Amino acid sequence: MNKKIPLVTVPRISLYYRALLESRHKDYISSEEIAYLTGFNSAQVRKDLAYFGQFGTPGKGYKVESLKKALLSILGTDRIWNVALVGVGNLGSALLSYKGFEEQGFKIVAAFDKDMRKIGKVIRQVKIQDIKDLEDTIHKKNIKIVILAIPAKHVQAIVDRLIKGGIKAILNFAPIRPKIPSDIHILNIDLSIELERLAYFLNKLR
Amino acid sequence: MNKKIPLVTVPRISLYYRALLESRHKDYISSEEIAYLTGFNSAQVRKDLAYFGQFGTPGKGYKVESLKKALLSILGTDRIWNVALVGVGNLGSALLSYKGFEEQGFKIVAAFDKDMRKIGKVIRQVKIQDIKDLEDTIHKKNIKIVILAIPAKHVQAIVDRLIKGGIKAILNFAPIRPKIPSDIHILNIDLSIELERLAYFLNKLR
Repeated sequence: MNKKIPLVTVPRISLYYRALLESRHKDYISSEEIAYLTGFNSAQVRKDLAYFGQFGTPGKGYKVESLKKALLSILGTDRIWNVALVGVGNLGSALLSYKGFEEQGFKIVAAFDKDMRKIGKVIRQVKIQDIKDLEDTIHKKNIKIVILAIPAKHVQAIVDRLIKGGIKAILNFAPIRPKIPSDIHILNIDLSIELERLAYFLNKLR
Repeated sequence: MNKKIPLVTVPRISLYYRALLESRHKDYISSEEIAYLTGFNSAQVRKDLAYFGQFGTPGKGYKVESLKKALLSILGTDRIWNVALVGVGNLGSALLSYKGFEEQGFKIVAAFDKDMRKIGKVIRQVKIQDIKDLEDTIHKKNIKIVILAIPAKHVQAIVDRLIKGGIKAILNFAPIRPKIPSDIHILNIDLSIELERLAYFLNKLR
């Protein structure tokens, strides 16, 4: 069933799941409540949940616990994913300290840098390793997802190494879109581009 | 002309602009070169640029300098935007230190927190202020964009204050989508949701 869900709906499922986490003291939740908590409209909520095979009981809504389990299983976050971070600069350090990842099942188990002054330091129980150990550690620690917080000019070389090392999922914070084979999934988060979208919007208002 | 460009194309313009920055030593650039640097295909590049009224010279390509100016003006980043940061935790501190923003015309001129241990500290020449000074400072410093790096439970209250204070553009890092009037533009970046999209993708491969 998973294969049928378009990738654009996944962020909605994530938000529904969070709404359920906030409602864990309840037995049932209505589509209207989920809509209120997530900011989508209730028709969208009902449509999405029906699509995932979840149907509410009239007058009661959805069973919180079983809906939670169903959504977790769809998301693939009913397990722990081992994550590596490459680049422990300002942004990388913040990501290492970000509690939200582990709460959602993502555990940063390794961090890499090429700066000798950083290698060996420990941040939130993760010891920063030399980037030369990248492939070895990916293999040994069963790492499935890699976060890149490195300068744009180094991204393509590191991505090439990651792909050779068997990584299929990458979250990239550098302002560049590296070239990848079609079986690799990369999400690019470019913070300046997000600000530019806001500036564009404000510009239109002038 | 700006009003006709759909918002989804704005990130592409941002990336074209960056490709031009990397090519500043050249007089002309071809759509193939822009395509290579940005990862889009050259037909898309030509289509987008024609849409913005930019036409290359056959055999030569686009004039780098004039194309740069045109894109900057479309993006609204041909000026400096004053930005405020609310929440100076791990993520907020990293954002405050992130050099990429200022390079793209976004200057964080104020930062706010409610933690008395943080208020008064200076990070990258920005003095952390008490959150109670929010509205006053927005007005005095002509702030147009606000970045939120605060816990989800505080987001709606701060967003309400920002909107009353005249802010129309918000970049929100908390895992919640606050309710806003239709004339306000908010971009939500939820780092865990991005990882969940990757996990979903990996899950499908199993």
